[in-house]
Amino acid sequence: MVRWNSLVLFSAVLIGSATASIVVAQDPVRSKVDDYLKRKGATVLQQLKTLVELPNVSREQKDVRKNAQYLVKEFEKRGAKMELLEVTGANPAIYGEIRTPNAKRTILIYIHYDGQPVDPARWKSTRPFEPKLYSRAMEQGGRPRDWPKNGEAIDEEWRVYGRSTSDDKAPLIALLNALDCLKESEVALTSNIKFFFDGEEEIGSPNMKKTLDAYAEKFRDVDLWLFCDGPLHQSRKPTVYFGVRGICGFELTVYGATRNLHSGHYGNWAPNPGLRLSKLLASMKDAKGNVVVKGFHDSMTPLTEEEKKELAAVPAIDDSLRRELGLKESDNENESYLARMQIPSLNVKGIRCGTVGPTARNIVPNTATASLDIRLVKGNRPRAMIELIRKHMESQGYLVVDKEPSMKQRRENKKIVKLVTTFKGYPAARTPMNHAQIRPVVRRLEECVGDEKLLKVPGLGGSLPLYLISDYLEQPIMIVPMANHDNNQHSPDENLRVGNLFYGVRMMAALLTADPLQKSN
Amino acid sequence: MVRWNSLVLFSAVLIGSATASIVVAQDPVRSKVDDYLKRKGATVLQQLKTLVELPNVSREQKDVRKNAQYLVKEFEKRGAKMELLEVTGANPAIYGEIRTPNAKRTILIYIHYDGQPVDPARWKSTRPFEPKLYSRAMEQGGRPRDWPKNGEAIDEEWRVYGRSTSDDKAPLIALLNALDCLKESEVALTSNIKFFFDGEEEIGSPNMKKTLDAYAEKFRDVDLWLFCDGPLHQSRKPTVYFGVRGICGFELTVYGATRNLHSGHYGNWAPNPGLRLSKLLASMKDAKGNVVVKGFHDSMTPLTEEEKKELAAVPAIDDSLRRELGLKESDNENESYLARMQIPSLNVKGIRCGTVGPTARNIVPNTATASLDIRLVKGNRPRAMIELIRKHMESQGYLVVDKEPSMKQRRENKKIVKLVTTFKGYPAARTPMNHAQIRPVVRRLEECVGDEKLLKVPGLGGSLPLYLISDYLEQPIMIVPMANHDNNQHSPDENLRVGNLFYGVRMMAALLTADPLQKSN
Repeated sequence: MVRWNSLVLFSAVLIGSATASIVVAQDPVRSKVDDYLKRKGATVLQQLKTLVELPNVSREQKDVRKNAQYLVKEFEKRGAKMELLEVTGANPAIYGEIRTPNAKRTILIYIHYDGQPVDPARWKSTRPFEPKLYSRAMEQGGRPRDWPKNGEAIDEEWRVYGRSTSDDKAPLIALLNALDCLKESEVALTSNIKFFFDGEEEIGSPNMKKTLDAYAEKFRDVDLWLFCDGPLHQSRKPTVYFGVRGICGFELTVYGATRNLHSGHYGNWAPNPGLRLSKLLASMKDAKGNVVVKGFHDSMTPLTEEEKKELAAVPAIDDSLRRELGLKESDNENESYLARMQIPSLNVKGIRCGTVGPTARNIVPNTATASLDIRLVKGNRPRAMIELIRKHMESQGYLVVDKEPSMKQRRENKKIVKLVTTFKGYPAARTPMNHAQIRPVVRRLEECVGDEKLLKVPGLGGSLPLYLISDYLEQPIMIVPMANHDNNQHSPDENLRVGNLFYGVRMMAALLTADPLQKSN
Repeated sequence: MVRWNSLVLFSAVLIGSATASIVVAQDPVRSKVDDYLKRKGATVLQQLKTLVELPNVSREQKDVRKNAQYLVKEFEKRGAKMELLEVTGANPAIYGEIRTPNAKRTILIYIHYDGQPVDPARWKSTRPFEPKLYSRAMEQGGRPRDWPKNGEAIDEEWRVYGRSTSDDKAPLIALLNALDCLKESEVALTSNIKFFFDGEEEIGSPNMKKTLDAYAEKFRDVDLWLFCDGPLHQSRKPTVYFGVRGICGFELTVYGATRNLHSGHYGNWAPNPGLRLSKLLASMKDAKGNVVVKGFHDSMTPLTEEEKKELAAVPAIDDSLRRELGLKESDNENESYLARMQIPSLNVKGIRCGTVGPTARNIVPNTATASLDIRLVKGNRPRAMIELIRKHMESQGYLVVDKEPSMKQRRENKKIVKLVTTFKGYPAARTPMNHAQIRPVVRRLEECVGDEKLLKVPGLGGSLPLYLISDYLEQPIMIVPMANHDNNQHSPDENLRVGNLFYGVRMMAALLTADPLQKSN
């Protein structure tokens, strides 16, 4: 087998003598992957299709387990030692190992294999678990097309529609093919590789900590956790992140009369909870979209100078993103997208009050409910942030209760809101960019996959329970996403751009062949 | 047959010599009705049960027609000449006549026989069209009980649950039984009686005007329209109203990005339409629940001195109503219920944005929609009131559109709201309390049914298309309700208090025997 060391030396020579883009193009691993994809791209797509055809909504435990069983077999075929990590009542986590002789480092690759709930009636592209190939994104006029035969030219703008195509089954397929490609090319791995495939990420990984505790010996020697989830930067450039926002969720229910009332006979007299909830939500943000809840921005850990510098080097895609999404102005008068991701957010996920449309009845509704989430940044604690919301509502004259108010409470309090924490959530995580385990992996990625400068972002907008690694296990983390940003994640018509799947294979091959010399003991 | 004249003389003698309550108790028609109900109350309930068992949701035209056919037969049995007034595509209106020899006046009784939509899953008492008798209101601990046998004592606190028990089938049963009772007692009618039973009231009587035009000759000789719909005053005292509020309805949709976005990756950057809609609705009312849309109160016709006086004489039930409904305070710091019904209202019927509850997804929703109605008072015009809303939204910085905004509009306008009139509606109606056709009927009601002073209210909070009579046909109107105020009108678990059904029979008997001498030609 070709040893990794010689490849690196080969690249290193070129680095001194040519432009970065030429070096990248000639990286041997990169070349082998490109050749592999040219010959086997159609098979890669078929593998994704087969995996997406397995329904994986987190709450459907039988379905999820079928995914686990399938994945265990696929990775065993590639020589990995696989195991289901069971915790009572939970979807299994899938654990795997590939030992590499003489490796001085152990890298763990995290991917989740469960998916968001689906509402088939709202999907226009296909049924959620019947993946369909399109000639490009539907919004760009893409049309369904046949799956390609092997050897047929593949357009990177094609899209595969289906639940979890992007979030988060694509990395599993990319990893399988990176292993196949390296094996076929006789390129050796440079680290011990471990896998952790989460089966409950989309419901907040409620059993992750229990799993890490129950199987602690498996994780003790891990030097670096690589999380493959989330989207690339909107410029479609290779991107890595060193942290994520945390999250917590809650619901507010505002009360009117004890029952719905006829709007003719009571409208103008009975307090309208839809209007009251509107006033309450409106009081939480200013007209520019900034949270004005007292203390909301006080607990943030500020960015370091290096983090600020890397953040500033990321190309601004705000104008094109606004254009794509049909927005004249984004929050806080067009403050940059990435800057907005480094501060906590307060988001209305939904509001329910009475009915609208043809079934709307002429009533004063008796309740109004809003579902919200808070995305947390380093320094914020979930419960403390929800407490700030409680205090804010009290300052607006509300009695805040945690269950349906009693008749006595209703009669004695003008304004009542029920606050229920629907998701206790978890704090944010962030590893310093200059960590000794981070530097060599970043360098290898830059050599192997970066047609242009690798973008380095301190914090991803989305949430993963990475605090369990960064803070609880005290091991460094890095996020290595591959999905297109416009993948309709968590929504109907989720999709994966084929070019991003191919990028994923290149990225995985790079991670599996990162410089082993930088091992810090 | 006993002639009406002699009864009136008999009553008139007593009026001079006894207290009002004794007079009322001894009114011969009242006595006959009370005796009739004692003997036949169980049959009256069975008749209501049979009628409610016929589903009557306005949009289910075949169902509605079966009701019409049934009612035609029942009224023909009582000697009325019945006819369906057909307009293409509409539910038929039922027309009827009972000619009275030598009558000098023609009274028309309006009732509607269609009902509100139902959501059986939300009914706790019974299925909507399977009427069930309860020992009292469910909220007061009422339990299902057997229907009574004839002669069995009947408790006026019993309730019949089912769609349209109150709104508006009870008056039909009351009218049938008043006719039976007067016939059995050989009490003659004093007016020509006409019936107009509307089959489309719950969808806003869209064909009423067409019907009045197509069959104009049938209505030309009507001296007074009596509308039997809506509830009695909350004190349960006999009540008449001389007008109704008008109504119109509209929906607002506020736009964010062109698609739902992941709340982690876009929360804090993408404008949240749920929050924006909240701010927009919040801007329309002050903290006390008063509408602050500019011009909203400018076009109202003020009440006359007589109207103000009668209004002030109505007992305040506000405290007990608030207590019953679990409210510490009603709108505008406890301003009186009836005063609030004499001004236009703006009511949020429903809000839809994303989802709440267990299916809530972590998204920034792409739209938020609210459904509202405006209740109009004398002087307000529906379209002009909606125009005030449009101007208000423009003053809040919104581009107001009437269909889905184009990409160009989205990119060029920071805030966009779609305003769609969902119900063009109709203006309010009000007949002066001192109208010559009104006085004798009110007096007869006071003699026959009023155990206490008859309450006279200028305007009912609810809406009926009475402007077609008062303004278009230029004929006087009066509203003679009979339902209990706590009937869950338009909501699940609609019900009728049995005492109110019996009150309805007494009331109908009074209306059918009103003093004929006051005919003004």
